[in-house]
Amino acid sequence: MKVVIVGGVAGGASAAARLRRLSEEAEIIILERGEYVSFANCGLPYHIGGEIKRRRDLLIATPELFREQFNIDVRTGHEVTAIDRGGRSVRVTERLTGREYDEPYDRLLLCQGAAPVRPALPGIDHPRIYSMRNIPDMDLVKKLVDGGAKTAVVVGAGYVGLEMVEALVHRGLKVDLVELQEQVLPILDPEMASDLRFHLEEKGVRVRLGTGVKVFHDVNGRVEIELADGQSVAADFVLMAIGVVPESGLAQAAGLETGARGSVRVDEHLRTSDPEIYAAGDMVEVTDTVTGERTNIPLAGPANRQGRIAADHICGRNSAYTTTQGTAIVKLFDLAAAITGASERTLRRTGIAFEKIYLHPFGHAVYYPGTEQMHAKVLFDPEDGRILGAQIVGFDGVDKRIDIFAVAVRMGMTVHDLEQLELAYAPPFGSAKDAINMAGFVGANVLNGDVRFWFAEDHPEKTAAGTVLDVRTRKEYEKGHIEGAVLIPLDELRSRLDEARRLAQPLYIYCLTGIRSYLAYRILDLNGFSELYNLAGGWKSFNCCYRERLEDGGIGVRHTS
Amino acid sequence: MKVVIVGGVAGGASAAARLRRLSEEAEIIILERGEYVSFANCGLPYHIGGEIKRRRDLLIATPELFREQFNIDVRTGHEVTAIDRGGRSVRVTERLTGREYDEPYDRLLLCQGAAPVRPALPGIDHPRIYSMRNIPDMDLVKKLVDGGAKTAVVVGAGYVGLEMVEALVHRGLKVDLVELQEQVLPILDPEMASDLRFHLEEKGVRVRLGTGVKVFHDVNGRVEIELADGQSVAADFVLMAIGVVPESGLAQAAGLETGARGSVRVDEHLRTSDPEIYAAGDMVEVTDTVTGERTNIPLAGPANRQGRIAADHICGRNSAYTTTQGTAIVKLFDLAAAITGASERTLRRTGIAFEKIYLHPFGHAVYYPGTEQMHAKVLFDPEDGRILGAQIVGFDGVDKRIDIFAVAVRMGMTVHDLEQLELAYAPPFGSAKDAINMAGFVGANVLNGDVRFWFAEDHPEKTAAGTVLDVRTRKEYEKGHIEGAVLIPLDELRSRLDEARRLAQPLYIYCLTGIRSYLAYRILDLNGFSELYNLAGGWKSFNCCYRERLEDGGIGVRHTS
Repeated sequence: MKVVIVGGVAGGASAAARLRRLSEEAEIIILERGEYVSFANCGLPYHIGGEIKRRRDLLIATPELFREQFNIDVRTGHEVTAIDRGGRSVRVTERLTGREYDEPYDRLLLCQGAAPVRPALPGIDHPRIYSMRNIPDMDLVKKLVDGGAKTAVVVGAGYVGLEMVEALVHRGLKVDLVELQEQVLPILDPEMASDLRFHLEEKGVRVRLGTGVKVFHDVNGRVEIELADGQSVAADFVLMAIGVVPESGLAQAAGLETGARGSVRVDEHLRTSDPEIYAAGDMVEVTDTVTGERTNIPLAGPANRQGRIAADHICGRNSAYTTTQGTAIVKLFDLAAAITGASERTLRRTGIAFEKIYLHPFGHAVYYPGTEQMHAKVLFDPEDGRILGAQIVGFDGVDKRIDIFAVAVRMGMTVHDLEQLELAYAPPFGSAKDAINMAGFVGANVLNGDVRFWFAEDHPEKTAAGTVLDVRTRKEYEKGHIEGAVLIPLDELRSRLDEARRLAQPLYIYCLTGIRSYLAYRILDLNGFSELYNLAGGWKSFNCCYRERLEDGGIGVRHTS
Repeated sequence: MKVVIVGGVAGGASAAARLRRLSEEAEIIILERGEYVSFANCGLPYHIGGEIKRRRDLLIATPELFREQFNIDVRTGHEVTAIDRGGRSVRVTERLTGREYDEPYDRLLLCQGAAPVRPALPGIDHPRIYSMRNIPDMDLVKKLVDGGAKTAVVVGAGYVGLEMVEALVHRGLKVDLVELQEQVLPILDPEMASDLRFHLEEKGVRVRLGTGVKVFHDVNGRVEIELADGQSVAADFVLMAIGVVPESGLAQAAGLETGARGSVRVDEHLRTSDPEIYAAGDMVEVTDTVTGERTNIPLAGPANRQGRIAADHICGRNSAYTTTQGTAIVKLFDLAAAITGASERTLRRTGIAFEKIYLHPFGHAVYYPGTEQMHAKVLFDPEDGRILGAQIVGFDGVDKRIDIFAVAVRMGMTVHDLEQLELAYAPPFGSAKDAINMAGFVGANVLNGDVRFWFAEDHPEKTAAGTVLDVRTRKEYEKGHIEGAVLIPLDELRSRLDEARRLAQPLYIYCLTGIRSYLAYRILDLNGFSELYNLAGGWKSFNCCYRERLEDGGIGVRHTS
């Protein structure tokens, strides 16, 4: 059997290696348009930023290694221009020489990935406008930075955009970040992204939200951007990072069925509409784990696993790919931001019922140094408590917690399962009641009817019918509080119940993070108050819905070291 | 209803707070023999070591806070000396005054924890022999260290012993560690503990394994220990950390049913054999998640959750505690060591069939700085692939991976589930194929028959029948190899198949970590070799079974910073 693989980075390289482990007889050819195979595309910003010192560390497997260890024929600089499905061959152009030839296949595997979006804006062809997909892209930008570039504009505040901002700031550049949405990292719900914005601003980044590029102008070789909001910003170069589109042109031209965002439709074995052609990675359509929608979610982990599964099936094994849940994480200076499963925005759009909670647990035992509160949002099914999604922004322990939520989403676990989890605890690593257990407890309290929450978006319209009740200390209240809130500190509540009874009901209770207000809620509930709401995540989560940074609100500053 | 709680640290404090959240009417009394309630007992070594600067940070909740926020009557220095089950009251001694009184209860909750074992050895009453259970214990040892103690002997290399060793070394003391077993951290399988020992020795700790204390002598106020192996060691003080026993004397005297290791037997609602008496925490018997055995596993996380569940049930809720799986982690200087579920030792003892694999994955993308290989052992069911247990020793990312294995053990997940997990990946946090996915792939390979493993313990007896085949490079081989191993580097294997065929079969293949040898295994398997074994975890895991430290073997040294 002869297997031709188009594209040799994540899915393609994984598939090729797996194919060889399953068959010594198969002839395996990788046709890669670029100069490199199996490089660390997720590492590109970090070589520019200087964390990854050696460029060669990004080259995970070379054509030589593929040949020597795997007996695989890797042809870089070979571009496939057409598929002849009837004749079972591909048309190839050797880019260096222009030579064209046909390469027959028994099975074809497309792993072409996704290409950075390059919008048809006036001036987009300016030579100082870059994107970040491969090693040559990196080399170009790194050369500019090494050569003394002082300013940059990054357009797009998604993962790649944020990583590039961090890299360029590390290198001493003054960076403007332009994002069309009213938030950074638009895959998060907006309130979860606000601390990221504050953190960027603390690091000296000028964040321009809710605006986009209108025109690129050349000014003496530099770029000046005219923004949609009428402002303009100039820089030594521009990095476009407004997303990627599946590289499905070849597949479409061959008449293969496509789906969401132009991605190639595949079955659970990664077979396209032509059973002799497989596709894997960022270019294929997947099913969303939570919503069941067909969609396209470019991620390295799924790409690698899909490559493996396609190889299995080509070799006659029954491996299957199930769904993609969109687990992702980004480091942004001292912060980490992560998501798994559905966001609130997605659940609303798809009409899936949910409850939501916010928490501010610490990464590890608060009395052991080096930890901070993180901001976590958990979405779950209001009937059975099944975890639908989670988002976390914080300093330490974010990656660990999002991974556990990722397992929960995948395995259909409920908030009650989270209550029961027995996780590893020692003061440097966690808490006896871990953040995950706490999320389970709070979620279970909702399902049990022990607490009902209110949210920032209920203020002031909904809260106006009752009273906002602050149960923090007088000192905290005096430093700042929700406008119109009445103060009854938790410690005084039992002796001031009559006073609380005279307030307009319902009571919209709050404290700093939601713990003391929960205690107050319970006291009032058990004393016969029937219209109670506890502010989910407290003052800290509340503040994330507002644009101004408030003292003691948000988590954008690391308090300890 | 009146609830009396005996003991106010982990389970007792959790139960009391939960009780109040469920009932404003209940009268809740905590009787605590010591001076402190709800203190951070897991933090004690770190205040001695200096990481936790302020002693007051260890006092999580004071009696005042319990009174003001929870309306709970906390009586420290009050010791319960007897239970009158018929009369539903406890006999209490106020330690300061000697006053005795009876305190009636409707429900009694015992949360007395576990006491350090203090063996009846000659000289054990020497005033410079300490243990580490509570704040006064900590104060005593800290005072000695602050006062200039130069040397210490820690007896027992479990969690507390290792944490105390680290703390004392941080403070500049010369420390001897004495352990009766032939390994440190005896809860791990021995090969997983060997890197811990090397790491201790690198930090200047004298590790004395396989020996115990015979006699303690006084030498001018200092302690001299005569060891069972005939050697002796002197020090300014001794810290005994050879384990704990359930504090069940009061329960036993009252005729409550007891079980494993003298722990108090409870049902799933934490009720003892007297349905009006509950017990929770380190003093109770639990069911082992994996083996189903009744046992006693003292851990902070389960203690806290049990307290909560007991409170629920006292208030008429149907909460239930299921099982304890023994998830635990310890920081030892730069290393972390962690376990969840059953060890190989436990599985062998209980006759549960298992497969085992070893891996050496990196904490995050190898090209991003700050990561090291960890050493992971995973045990799973040979039929359905269900995860039975895992152990990890390493530098970064150990806590995250053990937690995911902990979820896997609890939820009955299989190696196939691990293959499919979609975890958060960016270079600073993980790998596109995470350590967990890799464990799933390797486990699935075993179940699919794609690989069979051999282990260090098969050498030299079992391997003598065939050939040990080294597939590393010539350079690696020349630096050191398994005695008698034949070298055929992986890259030459396809061209030297005839030579391989002439070797005595079976072939016991190995490389450094098991990856290249797996490739070699597949090449040979697909070329008709039928008697093949791959060394699980390779040369690195192999070396962990031997006492001498070998260059490039083991993980006791952090290579990058």
